[in-house]
Amino acid sequence: MSLVVVGSVAYDGVETPHGKVDRMLGGAATYIGLAASYFAPVKIVAVVGDDFALEDVDLLAGKGIDLEGLERVPGKTFFWEGRYSADMNDRETLRTDLNVFADFQPKLPERYRAAPYLLLGNIQPALQRGVREQMNGVKLAGGDTMNYWIRDYREELLETLREWDFLLINDSEARMLSGEHNLRRAAAKILDMGPRTLVVKRGEYGAILFTEGRHFMAPGYLLEDVFDPTGAGDCFAGGFIGYLAERGVNAGGGAVDLQDWRRAAIYGSVMGSFCCEQFGVDRFRTLTRDEVEDRYREFKACTDF
Amino acid sequence: MSLVVVGSVAYDGVETPHGKVDRMLGGAATYIGLAASYFAPVKIVAVVGDDFALEDVDLLAGKGIDLEGLERVPGKTFFWEGRYSADMNDRETLRTDLNVFADFQPKLPERYRAAPYLLLGNIQPALQRGVREQMNGVKLAGGDTMNYWIRDYREELLETLREWDFLLINDSEARMLSGEHNLRRAAAKILDMGPRTLVVKRGEYGAILFTEGRHFMAPGYLLEDVFDPTGAGDCFAGGFIGYLAERGVNAGGGAVDLQDWRRAAIYGSVMGSFCCEQFGVDRFRTLTRDEVEDRYREFKACTDF
Repeated sequence: MSLVVVGSVAYDGVETPHGKVDRMLGGAATYIGLAASYFAPVKIVAVVGDDFALEDVDLLAGKGIDLEGLERVPGKTFFWEGRYSADMNDRETLRTDLNVFADFQPKLPERYRAAPYLLLGNIQPALQRGVREQMNGVKLAGGDTMNYWIRDYREELLETLREWDFLLINDSEARMLSGEHNLRRAAAKILDMGPRTLVVKRGEYGAILFTEGRHFMAPGYLLEDVFDPTGAGDCFAGGFIGYLAERGVNAGGGAVDLQDWRRAAIYGSVMGSFCCEQFGVDRFRTLTRDEVEDRYREFKACTDF
Repeated sequence: MSLVVVGSVAYDGVETPHGKVDRMLGGAATYIGLAASYFAPVKIVAVVGDDFALEDVDLLAGKGIDLEGLERVPGKTFFWEGRYSADMNDRETLRTDLNVFADFQPKLPERYRAAPYLLLGNIQPALQRGVREQMNGVKLAGGDTMNYWIRDYREELLETLREWDFLLINDSEARMLSGEHNLRRAAAKILDMGPRTLVVKRGEYGAILFTEGRHFMAPGYLLEDVFDPTGAGDCFAGGFIGYLAERGVNAGGGAVDLQDWRRAAIYGSVMGSFCCEQFGVDRFRTLTRDEVEDRYREFKACTDF
């Protein structure tokens, strides 16, 4: 079933110990959309400038992604530049040019509104809420946020979260949002804020899914080489919501769905792991669903006891 | 089947965000022995001073631990003092008084020598090798080491490792020993040094077992409160070797044993998690095997998909 993805479509400049790319396709909606496209039909809502390259449109369209909601306006596309530390566990932002993204007001095309799945990438909470309100009959909605919104837009964020079925954030964000260092207690507090399910992403260590009073530990994939971790968290989100959309899981939950939520977290880890194997979105140029399934089976094989 | 454990028996002073204890029973052999005692008969080889308290002898003896190899000499018992950071991921050593441990020359009582299992806690590699040589007919031997021996006693350590069936170290030690940052490649290099199995401990994130060209990811247990992580890595080692000794696993390996190795890593995580729940060895004063099995099942429940 189809999925609406809202967020940034951007150009990134990235330096890692494996190399440097001055300008390549990036952005949360790009990574989420590409990863989710392996599971379900994706409809993107985002804005780009008149410098957005035709080959990048072609990459997204080639994955069957609906681009009617990709607004093109005069000016330049959002640009981000960053450099990773030697062990790639930290990164430094060297430049952020919001450009056309500064005035982004997501507008959903008419035929997006009935889509049953919605993934709200990391943008201002009020904009996320506005998108949620434009949708009719959503079965499952959730999204991502970041430290900036948690710290400086707390009330707006809390109001937004109340309507979400799930929230995907990393461990430091979960600690900041809840005010609890311990993840188990942080999760309990966050689940009281509205979302029925919380996924705490832990980078190379995988993710923990909290729902229905239980938790599930999804390991990180042990890569031979991490070329570029940019977008891995968004690809996790894409694999996660993509699988739920493919399975037709709804917010209601229940015993059977619990297994689906767990598998969704594994598919999230799977897609995040592929993302790191090449620079930017390059891995998705060749990745096949069969490879995705092979890696899912690898996760099974390396966690079974 | 019985297990010989060699290492330090000490007194520790520990400060964590949850409190401060000036002097309590500690040391690698203590933690390893206590954790392993839930699975197999343990025989300890260590040295203490004449200040070693009778109540501490009683605690160990009360778990059925054979103390014939616990040498008592004039002087003071090894003392270590440390303070943990607010998030307990780092610790600072405030004081190390080797005392009687400085001249420790492990001597195995005659009836220890035929024990089929051997766990060499973190002491000088030449001493570990000497103990291995005193044993007859060991089925499975392995141990721990640390950054100090890896850096300053490298050749001696490499010679020692060659005779081991398994090595248990943490991730930074694995990187230091192999010279590889990536854990998958670090593991491949270390397995070339002799051990057939490598366990890389990752603290709260669990451990990875590498053997027979495969790997297994054991998650860390998500504790509600970490009171004191001192000894958790040694308790992992104790649960790990204890379970292998209980099952009678030998170095040969093979398909059935592979599951045993995996379960041993889970029992390692189980025992490490209990260790953190109270200060020092306190959790082991009340812990039962039933609680151990309950937690093992919790690990199963929170990793199954």
